[in-house]
Amino acid sequence: MKTFAEIQAFLTGELEKLDWNRQPVGLYEPIGYILALGGKRIRPALVLLANDMFGGNLKEAAPAALALEVFHNFTLLHDDIMDKAPIRRGKPTVHMKWNDNTAILSGDTMLIEAYKLLAQVPERHLKATLDIFSKTACEICEGQQYDMEFEKRQTVSVPEYMEMIRLKTAVLLGMALQVGAGLADAPKADIEELYQFGINIGLAFQLKDDYLDVYGNEKTFGKAIGGDILCNKKTYMLISALNDAGPETRKELEYWLNNTTDDKAKISAVTGIYNMLQTGGKCEEAMDFYFQKAVANLNRISLIEDKKQELRALAQRLMLRNE
Amino acid sequence: MKTFAEIQAFLTGELEKLDWNRQPVGLYEPIGYILALGGKRIRPALVLLANDMFGGNLKEAAPAALALEVFHNFTLLHDDIMDKAPIRRGKPTVHMKWNDNTAILSGDTMLIEAYKLLAQVPERHLKATLDIFSKTACEICEGQQYDMEFEKRQTVSVPEYMEMIRLKTAVLLGMALQVGAGLADAPKADIEELYQFGINIGLAFQLKDDYLDVYGNEKTFGKAIGGDILCNKKTYMLISALNDAGPETRKELEYWLNNTTDDKAKISAVTGIYNMLQTGGKCEEAMDFYFQKAVANLNRISLIEDKKQELRALAQRLMLRNE
Repeated sequence: MKTFAEIQAFLTGELEKLDWNRQPVGLYEPIGYILALGGKRIRPALVLLANDMFGGNLKEAAPAALALEVFHNFTLLHDDIMDKAPIRRGKPTVHMKWNDNTAILSGDTMLIEAYKLLAQVPERHLKATLDIFSKTACEICEGQQYDMEFEKRQTVSVPEYMEMIRLKTAVLLGMALQVGAGLADAPKADIEELYQFGINIGLAFQLKDDYLDVYGNEKTFGKAIGGDILCNKKTYMLISALNDAGPETRKELEYWLNNTTDDKAKISAVTGIYNMLQTGGKCEEAMDFYFQKAVANLNRISLIEDKKQELRALAQRLMLRNE
Repeated sequence: MKTFAEIQAFLTGELEKLDWNRQPVGLYEPIGYILALGGKRIRPALVLLANDMFGGNLKEAAPAALALEVFHNFTLLHDDIMDKAPIRRGKPTVHMKWNDNTAILSGDTMLIEAYKLLAQVPERHLKATLDIFSKTACEICEGQQYDMEFEKRQTVSVPEYMEMIRLKTAVLLGMALQVGAGLADAPKADIEELYQFGINIGLAFQLKDDYLDVYGNEKTFGKAIGGDILCNKKTYMLISALNDAGPETRKELEYWLNNTTDDKAKISAVTGIYNMLQTGGKCEEAMDFYFQKAVANLNRISLIEDKKQELRALAQRLMLRNE
């Protein structure tokens, strides 16, 4: 069994072997740039963790892991254009450093490169791996579409929001585990539990993110606190508060949603409303619900506890970040 | 042997079976829209023609043919954003009818859907088909990148231009034939000749397009004459004229390149310079050079003439359009 740290070290080495020093420079340089920005490499690590749990061959699973990392960064590249985001991991986004056209075309190339990597899995696994990869990739586009549509809608329900983040965020974690375990010929029932584990961890993880935007610690969260509040992002926090608010509180909340002049006052006022409605507690409750579901999925997997340790520990670290 | 018309009728039926009536509507409706705009369906037809020539099974090759058509339309969708094109086949482009974000995301989905279709080829052909598809898809992105870079450069040489259109346009035709013949287990040497036939026809076809922008007949060409001239597009015509012009003619040509006030005068003056430099004749010569190479490729294929008839006739129709 490999530790998470060992897997991450292995991944860093494999990622560095990918050669983006290709012609035309204007197409491939942005790909090298975004992949070098780092990030936690959670998704490729999940492929390899799941593969290793079931005694797979890391070298065989590596191309699929890299495919997921390249794919994930492709989605970031295109999402950043759509969201007009200026900064990604503390550095200018590709469409800011270059331009929109470059970000579109380099992103397209990354999606194709992800499929090139995926095509390197052992041939007996190729069809199944491709099918779940493409299914998930479409779901992620659907999630991004819902996310953009929700931003323009008056009201969004909590179930609609949960379905959106399932598509936009959670299915990729589920698929990473599914692919990794599949390549190790894991039993079907275990693959399904792992997939659901990934979904549930993904949902819990996103809820934690929504929570930390309000109640996090700026230094360790890595983003400015209140960013979602300032852009009226329809997170679990806002959707839940709009749901729970009586007529007067709702009016006050809507007043602040329309206020774009005083950032500090807006963050403070909206946080005050969340406090009053106990939105944070509700978000934590939902988070814990999905986390417990994930733990139950992991418990049901037909392996000895030893084999599950790394994944269990990773899930806990993802949840316990109280940054 | 199927005729080209029979193949197109079959393709129309298969394309109609693809269901874009899916949720979220905002994501899938633009895909149905662009695919319904029509076009000549040359690329999927080439897959099936090549397949049929070598006694393949049309039903088996159909998903690959559809994959190419969906992929080709994905490139149109994203190219139209990058080129800020308002009209495609007489209708508003997706980014105009909806918006840029929709065009980006629906385009991404089409690329994934193309891979979904491709994954339906018989499993023994999957790896090889995927590999040549992805290789070509990357080349097409490279071609688009060169095209955008050339528009910003002072000078582009004829060989640079030919390499750009090889990547942007020709390799997809070559790949279509390669995939179709490969799925019919054609001999390797024949597949290579067919691929080169596609490349050479693609180059000749693009040169014809460049020529017709100046000397075509508006009614049958389907686009306004002089469109390339008005936007200073670096076609074979302009590149060749800039190459051949003496200092004075060059000065005059550059004067008109900088003139954006009088469209009619600009088209007339630039056409006059092309006439003087005999640029049209040179373009036709180059076109004929590649067309003859394509014919030689076709001649070398180890099939009786009967089997080559449909492809030979199609190549001639593509070249003889004197619209």
